[in-house]
Amino acid sequence: MARFFISASNLFGGVAYLSAAEREHIKVLRLRQGEVFTVCDGSGTDYTCELSKNEDGELVGRIIEKAPSKGEPSVDVTVYAALAKGDKNETVIQKCVELGAHSIVIFPSARCIVKLENDAAILKKTDRWQKIALEAAKQCGRGIIPVVKYATSFELAVDMAAKAELPLFLYENESKLGIHDAIIAKKDAKTISIFTGPEGGFDDSEALYAMDNGMTSVTLGPRILRCETAPMCGVTAAMLLTGNL
Amino acid sequence: MARFFISASNLFGGVAYLSAAEREHIKVLRLRQGEVFTVCDGSGTDYTCELSKNEDGELVGRIIEKAPSKGEPSVDVTVYAALAKGDKNETVIQKCVELGAHSIVIFPSARCIVKLENDAAILKKTDRWQKIALEAAKQCGRGIIPVVKYATSFELAVDMAAKAELPLFLYENESKLGIHDAIIAKKDAKTISIFTGPEGGFDDSEALYAMDNGMTSVTLGPRILRCETAPMCGVTAAMLLTGNL
Repeated sequence: MARFFISASNLFGGVAYLSAAEREHIKVLRLRQGEVFTVCDGSGTDYTCELSKNEDGELVGRIIEKAPSKGEPSVDVTVYAALAKGDKNETVIQKCVELGAHSIVIFPSARCIVKLENDAAILKKTDRWQKIALEAAKQCGRGIIPVVKYATSFELAVDMAAKAELPLFLYENESKLGIHDAIIAKKDAKTISIFTGPEGGFDDSEALYAMDNGMTSVTLGPRILRCETAPMCGVTAAMLLTGNL
Repeated sequence: MARFFISASNLFGGVAYLSAAEREHIKVLRLRQGEVFTVCDGSGTDYTCELSKNEDGELVGRIIEKAPSKGEPSVDVTVYAALAKGDKNETVIQKCVELGAHSIVIFPSARCIVKLENDAAILKKTDRWQKIALEAAKQCGRGIIPVVKYATSFELAVDMAAKAELPLFLYENESKLGIHDAIIAKKDAKTISIFTGPEGGFDDSEALYAMDNGMTSVTLGPRILRCETAPMCGVTAAMLLTGNL
């Protein structure tokens, strides 16, 4: 079923008021009057609507049912992924939104090949990333639009990530604690961070900083995962072991 | 460490004999005499070698250590992924090899948008897919090169998949059995199939055929995963819950 996110202020009197862009999208989808679609307020509530016209002849949705969005997990997983070449960050954002991530933070790291030079570059990238998160959220049936942010330093990203109840640092040089056991040991955690490195892996000094500042280092097994595979694997593990998959 | 797969017949007398292509690759990597690299026989054994020249002045590897490959899981997971548009099958193959899949089968399905018209097209595609599997196996440290095959019909793919001890059919209309519980209920299975659909999902008649022919239908949760995300999620679940991640 077609799905739109609209601001709660456009939902009143049993009617979902659509923006010009949404009405255009409805035309592209060739939805006809009487057909049903879903609007979501972005805060976890879905409204099933029937396409109608109001007295001004404008397309609106008549709300016929209201229910909590089914797509929201019981745990908030935030993905911290290092800035990467090409469209790898975009892939990570799209897939992690599908898998149920609550939000995504991209950050610079010592071995990053690319850099975001200034505020304009950061703004342009985060704007693009947020659009990808929105499209993925619509497509997979999320009840929120996961927010994508850029942390301007590695240390800042660690400080944010370490606030979670279960702050996991996915590190290729960790050999003892696996992600499975780390999650099972704290499976009632309501907030989980999945922190992953760039193409060349984390620098030793970065790993040290993360450990010193409250992160828990875990391994994803003996195979070396690409920088875009590790976040998806981490989110899947978090969802699977907390009963959300 | 640089990693090559070579045929067991090129490993004898304590020496790994390299092909012209591998010697060329070693030059590209700027490896110098005395530096070490790994060759793998593709059957689960790794050989640590020192780069040397033989009496003919040809680059060879002097074997200094032999050990089982660390990258092989204890369970054989075969991924059955429907033929998809663009480079989606390539993404699935690359990621599933990293995540530990034993082999990958691509198959046609009723709602597939693309088709492989004839034997030449199939051969060209499988050749490309196999190269991707090889590159991924080298990069992530596998002890085998996962084989990629094309099954010429949906029914054939089901018949192959159903032979596994745990044959999982990832179906968006399944609402009861989750993949977590299905794997936990049979966690000693040595062979698992992860069977996933095309962009538009499986046709009802296909789902019926799969159930009638021994597959177990499971859900990946309330969010609709893209056709390239579901296989990665399925392999991660299989590895995680069988102690291989």
